[in-house]
Amino acid sequence: MTVQSRSPERLVHVPLGDRAYDILIGPGLLARAGGEITSRLKGRKAAIITDEHVAPLYLEALMDGLQTDGIEAVSLTLPAGEKTKSFDHLATVCDMVLAARIERNDAVIALGGGVIGDLAGFAAGIVRRGVRFVQIPTSLLSQVDSSVGGKTGVNSRHGKNLLGVFHQPDLVLADTSILDTLSPREFRAGYAEVAKYGLIDNPAFFEWLEKNWQKVFEGGPERIEAIAVSCQSKADVVVEDEREMGRRALLNLGHTFGHALEAATQYDSKRLVHGEGVAIGMVLAHEFSARLNLASPDDAKRVEEHLKAVGLPTKMSDIPGELPGADVLLDAIMQDKKVKGGKLTFILTRGIGQSFVADDVPSSEVLSFLKEKLAK
Amino acid sequence: MTVQSRSPERLVHVPLGDRAYDILIGPGLLARAGGEITSRLKGRKAAIITDEHVAPLYLEALMDGLQTDGIEAVSLTLPAGEKTKSFDHLATVCDMVLAARIERNDAVIALGGGVIGDLAGFAAGIVRRGVRFVQIPTSLLSQVDSSVGGKTGVNSRHGKNLLGVFHQPDLVLADTSILDTLSPREFRAGYAEVAKYGLIDNPAFFEWLEKNWQKVFEGGPERIEAIAVSCQSKADVVVEDEREMGRRALLNLGHTFGHALEAATQYDSKRLVHGEGVAIGMVLAHEFSARLNLASPDDAKRVEEHLKAVGLPTKMSDIPGELPGADVLLDAIMQDKKVKGGKLTFILTRGIGQSFVADDVPSSEVLSFLKEKLAK
Repeated sequence: MTVQSRSPERLVHVPLGDRAYDILIGPGLLARAGGEITSRLKGRKAAIITDEHVAPLYLEALMDGLQTDGIEAVSLTLPAGEKTKSFDHLATVCDMVLAARIERNDAVIALGGGVIGDLAGFAAGIVRRGVRFVQIPTSLLSQVDSSVGGKTGVNSRHGKNLLGVFHQPDLVLADTSILDTLSPREFRAGYAEVAKYGLIDNPAFFEWLEKNWQKVFEGGPERIEAIAVSCQSKADVVVEDEREMGRRALLNLGHTFGHALEAATQYDSKRLVHGEGVAIGMVLAHEFSARLNLASPDDAKRVEEHLKAVGLPTKMSDIPGELPGADVLLDAIMQDKKVKGGKLTFILTRGIGQSFVADDVPSSEVLSFLKEKLAK
Repeated sequence: MTVQSRSPERLVHVPLGDRAYDILIGPGLLARAGGEITSRLKGRKAAIITDEHVAPLYLEALMDGLQTDGIEAVSLTLPAGEKTKSFDHLATVCDMVLAARIERNDAVIALGGGVIGDLAGFAAGIVRRGVRFVQIPTSLLSQVDSSVGGKTGVNSRHGKNLLGVFHQPDLVLADTSILDTLSPREFRAGYAEVAKYGLIDNPAFFEWLEKNWQKVFEGGPERIEAIAVSCQSKADVVVEDEREMGRRALLNLGHTFGHALEAATQYDSKRLVHGEGVAIGMVLAHEFSARLNLASPDDAKRVEEHLKAVGLPTKMSDIPGELPGADVLLDAIMQDKKVKGGKLTFILTRGIGQSFVADDVPSSEVLSFLKEKLAK
């Protein structure tokens, strides 16, 4: 894989028939949002959903850009953080979108990270049974993962993302210059999902990342390349399996353990953010695969070393504070939506870039594995 | 059209690819629900949503029937009436379905009329981004209309059905013996939607109804026939235009005026129920078409006479109590979701069974028409 020397902007097309859309990746897209939207959507009204961290930095620029191109926009700024992904906030967003008289061809615009994207996308999917939806992801995590593929949702007291719809965006604008304002911790958390695409089925990309990760962190063409490869990987999986009946589940590599750890830490971002949970979860998935004699323990070591090198947590003891017991973690896993007919579905691996869906993992194996890891 | 003399049960298949499903129509289906479900769905758990009018009559029989076939079912009984179609009740239903650990292959079962079907279907569409859904409609209205086609939703303070998803059922069981317990007023209200299928594009069916409506009201094979023809008509439209981009809008014949009247009477069922609004709305749509020189006034008269004969209200002055002015009704119409880019979309007609979608109706014409009708 080589970094290309032409114009830094990249376009990934997601060919989903009448739900097809473009992902644009590059610097300075925020200022051009109006033009990119008017060239693709019929409506000339927009409701922007954002949060109080992002709004002071980018909302005005976006509003100005939209106005220049004749789009009448209103905005709603919500509290930042995972707790905003609630049914109550969904009601607030829907009410605001309806009050703005957004019609089917008008757009809801998500300006923010995964929380805002998932929440605004859910609202866009249910207002008038679906209005247009534009993602302007402002975190690395959302640029490479949640903004692509149409999964939307909120959390419930029963678990994460348990309520939602599939609602594809009509356009994704991944402005890479926005990422310069991310904290190093946020950038690293997003990077865990970038590495995931290598681990799923692209060993060459993982190797490229092992060599080039510092340039990805510094910015420049390697960053755009890494994001474009990630979006393309995700788009390929989504096109093959839009509604997650099979292959799309691979994207959950590291997520079953990760979600359980997020639940166990009460979604407290001081202790653990999503990407960090995924980083630990990916190492656990490789270790668990090794324990089941599916993969070499060396691969788990290699994953751990790379994620550690970039500064990510890689084991449960890296999480500050007390963790609950293995049985509580297992219960969180059982309530996760990837359980079918009582049996556990896990993404396991035969080695770097050789992940697969296993839908018959005995819960007893998971329990003893977790007990062992927690005891260390 | 002749009534067939074979087994009274009818099956209408809705061929929607991987979302295809059957509608069974006939007496005694409630008791057989378990067998019909287990022969079609993989899951063996169900969450029944019903209301306090229907529960005392049919919930126990359904629970018993499901248990016999090995389906573990829990139930939630909500208040009866349009006010139950709210976002708050949606939250309650979703929480109950999640607490019951309903997984993707398990079912949410709607046992009730359109309110319960729309609410439970919405929940089934968003829990885990979609679980299985079985409709057991207990009113004539829901048997011939809302239980088929996958439109789900709740009302908002901004208007009716403004929040929802398209989520097709996996099975519809229209037990015609249940209809014997409906009040005459409820049966008549549902009958308005039956007549609608004739008025949309089936003049022979409308003529058959003019001759046979009394037998439909009495029960027997004519009732099953009328329901089957209605379901088949609706299925045909839905298959052609699942997500209401064009032709499906025809199903809204009478509904634009009807919804405005429902809003104007605050959804107070003592004054007006949905089918009655549709009856008045269909007469208004025919009269408005005549006023625009699209159809003969004789057709409007014929529609009015038939609906009056069965005992339905046919004009705004038939609604007890005060109605708001024409401008308030127009405003309700403008907020209806069938407004695109500010222009009014109406279902108009060139005569009995010759409806069409008009998407450029000037609001000034609607206003003066409403003023004239209200003055009478």
